[in-house]
Amino acid sequence: MTELTADESEERRRSIGARRNPDTQEAILEAAEAIVAEEGIAGFSIEAVAKRARAGKPTIYKWWPGKTALLLDVYHRHKPANVHQDTGTVEGDVVAFFTAIFAHWGNTGAGQVFRFVVAEAQRDEAAAASLQSYATERRKQSGQIFERGVARGELAADIDTGLAADMLAGFVWHRLLTGRLIGDPIEMRQAARQLVRGLLAPGR
Amino acid sequence: MTELTADESEERRRSIGARRNPDTQEAILEAAEAIVAEEGIAGFSIEAVAKRARAGKPTIYKWWPGKTALLLDVYHRHKPANVHQDTGTVEGDVVAFFTAIFAHWGNTGAGQVFRFVVAEAQRDEAAAASLQSYATERRKQSGQIFERGVARGELAADIDTGLAADMLAGFVWHRLLTGRLIGDPIEMRQAARQLVRGLLAPGR
Repeated sequence: MTELTADESEERRRSIGARRNPDTQEAILEAAEAIVAEEGIAGFSIEAVAKRARAGKPTIYKWWPGKTALLLDVYHRHKPANVHQDTGTVEGDVVAFFTAIFAHWGNTGAGQVFRFVVAEAQRDEAAAASLQSYATERRKQSGQIFERGVARGELAADIDTGLAADMLAGFVWHRLLTGRLIGDPIEMRQAARQLVRGLLAPGR
Repeated sequence: MTELTADESEERRRSIGARRNPDTQEAILEAAEAIVAEEGIAGFSIEAVAKRARAGKPTIYKWWPGKTALLLDVYHRHKPANVHQDTGTVEGDVVAFFTAIFAHWGNTGAGQVFRFVVAEAQRDEAAAASLQSYATERRKQSGQIFERGVARGELAADIDTGLAADMLAGFVWHRLLTGRLIGDPIEMRQAARQLVRGLLAPGR
């Protein structure tokens, strides 16, 4: 192997950085995860993550704009895949979403992490931008539930699928933020039914 | 006028306190309001309010369990009455609600105050209890929109009006907390329509 000059070596490091070296990125995420699990959110800082991952703070900042963005990645990695399912009906998909998200928030520390992120986003502009971009991604993902329904002819062609996704997310956020997670499957089915079928009396 | 003994005087003060002397309570609320208006939420503390209202901190704590409860009272005093209207139809009431709440949050400092309260409630147990009790009151109030609809025969008798109120609140909270207040009346009408009429294709 030919030895690199200092300049070539620097060039190589930069290009590895630009390609997002998966080892280092993975090491950072694992360190972040371990800190949340062991010390809770109170012990979480870019400094602590850098130390644990043996990475430089600038390396972390190259990939994540701040603490909240990194925390959201940790949060999202642990979100179970069954939050978004294709059950064949919109009501079934919404029930599956409620079941998975409330169980995830209630049974792991994930609910606490997400509450913390929402709180940070109300006071800090960088955190607000991170939450907004995360919510935009989820809005697209949940929107697919309603887009599939429109494509099947199950839902009206003139609905706004983004607004439907906001209604879905808003309902679960509100319950989380006021400490009223739903555990009762009957209540979840009723909420899904009202979201999809509406509230009108038969024939109205 | 007969002079009171120290004991009688103390007794009298306590009974005035128990009756919630409206002058002092009003003075405290006005002081709290002035601090929020002049210094913003950052300058808001029970200490600052006590000083401005020339009241003792124990007097404030007798009526409000903490800073968040007092802030919520200030917030609620400024909420315009037209947030809850009886327009004769549920969809009309929901459009009126969206119109009034988004305008209030966007045009005054109220949106910032409410975001701050929600953030506090994610980290502090007393703040969480205050927000929860406030949300319970609002849930009852907004629930009346849907109860009137059921009473008129407009809405199905088997809907859960509390879940409908949660869906309404969740939608507007989510938009506030992600910095996406709605200003477009067409979008508000579409959201109200979807909440009340649901998403199903005609005939489904």
